[in-house]
Amino acid sequence: MKTFILLFGCKDQKGIVARISDFILKHDGNIITADQYSTDPEGGHFFIRVEFVLGQDQYKKNDLTLEFSPIGSQFGASWNFYDKSETLRMGIFVSEPDHCLVDLLYLWSSGELNVEIPFVLSNVEKHRKLAASYNVPFHYICADKNNRKEDELLSYALNSTDFLVLARYMLVLSPDFLQKYNKDIINIHHGFLPFFKGADPAAKALEEGVKVIGSTAHFVNNELDEGPIIAQEVQNVSHKDSREDLVRKGKNLEKKALASAIASYIDYRVIRYENKTIVF
Amino acid sequence: MKTFILLFGCKDQKGIVARISDFILKHDGNIITADQYSTDPEGGHFFIRVEFVLGQDQYKKNDLTLEFSPIGSQFGASWNFYDKSETLRMGIFVSEPDHCLVDLLYLWSSGELNVEIPFVLSNVEKHRKLAASYNVPFHYICADKNNRKEDELLSYALNSTDFLVLARYMLVLSPDFLQKYNKDIINIHHGFLPFFKGADPAAKALEEGVKVIGSTAHFVNNELDEGPIIAQEVQNVSHKDSREDLVRKGKNLEKKALASAIASYIDYRVIRYENKTIVF
Amino acid sequence: MKTFILLFGCKDQKGIVARISDFILKHDGNIITADQYSTDPEGGHFFIRVEFVLGQDQYKKNDLTLEFSPIGSQFGASWNFYDKSETLRMGIFVSEPDHCLVDLLYLWSSGELNVEIPFVLSNVEKHRKLAASYNVPFHYICADKNNRKEDELLSYALNSTDFLVLARYMLVLSPDFLQKYNKDIINIHHGFLPFFKGADPAAKALEEGVKVIGSTAHFVNNELDEGPIIAQEVQNVSHKDSREDLVRKGKNLEKKALASAIASYIDYRVIRYENKTIVF
Amino acid sequence: MKTFILLFGCKDQKGIVARISDFILKHDGNIITADQYSTDPEGGHFFIRVEFVLGQDQYKKNDLTLEFSPIGSQFGASWNFYDKSETLRMGIFVSEPDHCLVDLLYLWSSGELNVEIPFVLSNVEKHRKLAASYNVPFHYICADKNNRKEDELLSYALNSTDFLVLARYMLVLSPDFLQKYNKDIINIHHGFLPFFKGADPAAKALEEGVKVIGSTAHFVNNELDEGPIIAQEVQNVSHKDSREDLVRKGKNLEKKALASAIASYIDYRVIRYENKTIVF
Repeated sequence: MKTFILLFGCKDQKGIVARISDFILKHDGNIITADQYSTDPEGGHFFIRVEFVLGQDQYKKNDLTLEFSPIGSQFGASWNFYDKSETLRMGIFVSEPDHCLVDLLYLWSSGELNVEIPFVLSNVEKHRKLAASYNVPFHYICADKNNRKEDELLSYALNSTDFLVLARYMLVLSPDFLQKYNKDIINIHHGFLPFFKGADPAAKALEEGVKVIGSTAHFVNNELDEGPIIAQEVQNVSHKDSREDLVRKGKNLEKKALASAIASYIDYRVIRYENKTIVF
Repeated sequence: MKTFILLFGCKDQKGIVARISDFILKHDGNIITADQYSTDPEGGHFFIRVEFVLGQDQYKKNDLTLEFSPIGSQFGASWNFYDKSETLRMGIFVSEPDHCLVDLLYLWSSGELNVEIPFVLSNVEKHRKLAASYNVPFHYICADKNNRKEDELLSYALNSTDFLVLARYMLVLSPDFLQKYNKDIINIHHGFLPFFKGADPAAKALEEGVKVIGSTAHFVNNELDEGPIIAQEVQNVSHKDSREDLVRKGKNLEKKALASAIASYIDYRVIRYENKTIVF
Repeated sequence: MKTFILLFGCKDQKGIVARISDFILKHDGNIITADQYSTDPEGGHFFIRVEFVLGQDQYKKNDLTLEFSPIGSQFGASWNFYDKSETLRMGIFVSEPDHCLVDLLYLWSSGELNVEIPFVLSNVEKHRKLAASYNVPFHYICADKNNRKEDELLSYALNSTDFLVLARYMLVLSPDFLQKYNKDIINIHHGFLPFFKGADPAAKALEEGVKVIGSTAHFVNNELDEGPIIAQEVQNVSHKDSREDLVRKGKNLEKKALASAIASYIDYRVIRYENKTIVF
Repeated sequence: MKTFILLFGCKDQKGIVARISDFILKHDGNIITADQYSTDPEGGHFFIRVEFVLGQDQYKKNDLTLEFSPIGSQFGASWNFYDKSETLRMGIFVSEPDHCLVDLLYLWSSGELNVEIPFVLSNVEKHRKLAASYNVPFHYICADKNNRKEDELLSYALNSTDFLVLARYMLVLSPDFLQKYNKDIINIHHGFLPFFKGADPAAKALEEGVKVIGSTAHFVNNELDEGPIIAQEVQNVSHKDSREDLVRKGKNLEKKALASAIASYIDYRVIRYENKTIVF
């Protein structure tokens, strides 16, 4: 048995579910889970994620794609099939601190994060040992604010990855890099977006005297810390929390938000729509 | 336009979604939301909740029921259509304290709880004033542990309600009452079930030195505080919390769990299955 | 036995606790709880809240104040004694919606909020009935953006209240009013400050696609929604949540944050310091 | 400057704080934080934790102990001074899974957990590599239910550790071991105690259909999973969560509860009292 996922979005209209489920039935498939959402049943946009098994092994993703094309066209939809047995290749960029890197590598090695990790790339040499202990290739790039070495980044990332994770990578990626890479990039921001953008959100939280802090995993786009939010984690704090406390508590939130966002993403549960996300 | 909800459950098998969505399409309907769950795609039990609008007003719940019957039979399913414009009649039983009663009446009067409330029934006379301030009929029943007056309860509840809420009603309802009433009863338990059953869970929590307390909304069945759990709320506590603090914090949890459970229930999002619930 | 509370703040230095506890001992008192905080043990500011009982009834707040004065002067401190048996008078201003008003009146009537409520004041006439059902005086003020009628507000509030609560009062109070009233005012903001200031935070949250919403209780100062934060509550949301859902969920957060802030305030647990709060 | 901590408990009575703070003042010290708690100001038990700095370096823990003795005797108290610059030695016992071990080693190496780790001891050989990557000695003990090899455990733990952490160690330690070791042992239980004791709490949670799961860090005593609770973490779950999901989510709760309990413990914030804990 093979498991496939269909992600599908179009202008809301009648008969979409009927047509899709009929397609699956005709391929002798069984729907395992389906999630759908409409921004507005009257003239809004409709999204569906269908996970289904096909009893017979002869179908491949390409077959389904080919055969589904007329249906997609009929509804004017954006859509894609994914084969659940194929794992995505996740490149990791990291500077400091390394708590998210440690967490991702452990989740991956213990089977909780079903991806391939072609490399860990960092402008901090000392993470090499950690990557090596997990037998993951490590690339050191001597990049800083004055020289981001984006060509080098791109040469590593472009063909070997399906998406990138910035696990506290401290250099902003240029619009040029984003355009050339042209795949999804997930960033963890150590603050509660859309606020506390930029550097040192702990200092800002302290200054404002907030009683709750947060962390945000989001897609990267051309605006700093402005891309669609995928997951957010929050925690109560008090006047007693020092800057160090906020940083330490924030780290837990970052690990949780990033791992949660990646888990949803690689299970094809995240759909971008109008600078927001639908997370099934 | 009319909105209907179909709740449907049967042994998991191929073609269910296709058949249901085709039925809706043929009635010129549009699916607004659909949630489904299978205990196991291989031989498990399948549940689906479909909310859909019919563009034309001529269809009534009974028409849909009649026309859907062959499909239900084909799959050996349990199923029901609900007309979203019909509101359920919720009877409230209450003793003391009255925080849940106050909360339910306010949510109802402010339009956040879409039910009819045919009566508030209590073995505590003083709630009459509150009920009156909301223009809700009030029945005082002089019931206690020695005389539960269940015939009287039944005479009020049987025909005028679609379900009952025990908003801190302190008398256990007998199996005989449950059998005669034969509709759903939702209870709020001021503890974290399946533990801390019975009276005075705050005292038990204090004695055990727990660092988290909870509250549980559940269906009533023949076993005390044993029915299927619908919603649970929890909150951190510490050694500083006195018995009064635990009771006070617990009250907030009770209001939240009960309101949440009722909101799901009246939106037909709760399915009972094997002494558990599926809450879509 | 009488219970008193001392709030005390001064430049951090040695011997403060020794001096205060010695003072209490010499008055034959027993410390029940003490909370202290220093912004920095080296040259920072020190705050302490001490709750203590005096075995003999002869002492009054004024006696303690008089006798403590030399100690306060010695440390260059700001300080105050409070008699726990005296309840504060809390005026309520409200427009719409009324969920916080309902909650506060219920908490008050059930003994969970130990204040006097001299009046509910509103620019919405229909809350009169609710106030009446709790036997609380109601003042209708025909105020709007063009005519805030602050003289009238002041005439009601100035002498009859110890502090004010804006339980969703929709008119901004002018600096002139704040100066003349010159006591604490607690506002509930239906958003997660210091962000989403001003009107309609739900719309902003929706637009930004946040996955967490919040609510903030804070002191009012001359800047709109800028005063020191006392309490914040947060809750997860998703793409499924409509504007109505956000408003509804937000209401729960508002009730919780406001009730929590008031409970701390009337127990003399809130200290303002540099546009932030210490909440013991 | 040296920082010391005093933990002190006795029957509640007048003058305790005065006497302690006077003692500190006379040693030219400054109190940084103080937390106190009384089970009942009338005849209850009083606990205080005072953290203070001494400006002059000449005092050592033993000096303070000697000089404080008369005060301790006067109040009939249990008490201890701790020198904050001395780190505790934490032995780790682990079987499988290893998520807590990974977390503790990382927190330790990144400076967030201020302990010494004399060894990791396991009945699972494969953790040797992980321990080695952190340069922590590893002891493999071929222990199982039939032969717990407690003499061997003891020979490693007795003299080299100040306390033990069972980071998912799957063998129950006998009363004999506990008596001989005679220091604190902290266990992480993958369930919400005092419920779901023993093996496989995820299966029990699934069977009961709970909507919240938890994890508990507690001291070990002679009763299985019965010792005083130090920290508990909880998380919402739903019918969708499979056994694997519950285990995975539980792991996060376990890491959080265990790290939190250890952080409080090594900062001398945990006091055992009547099979409960006070966590300042």
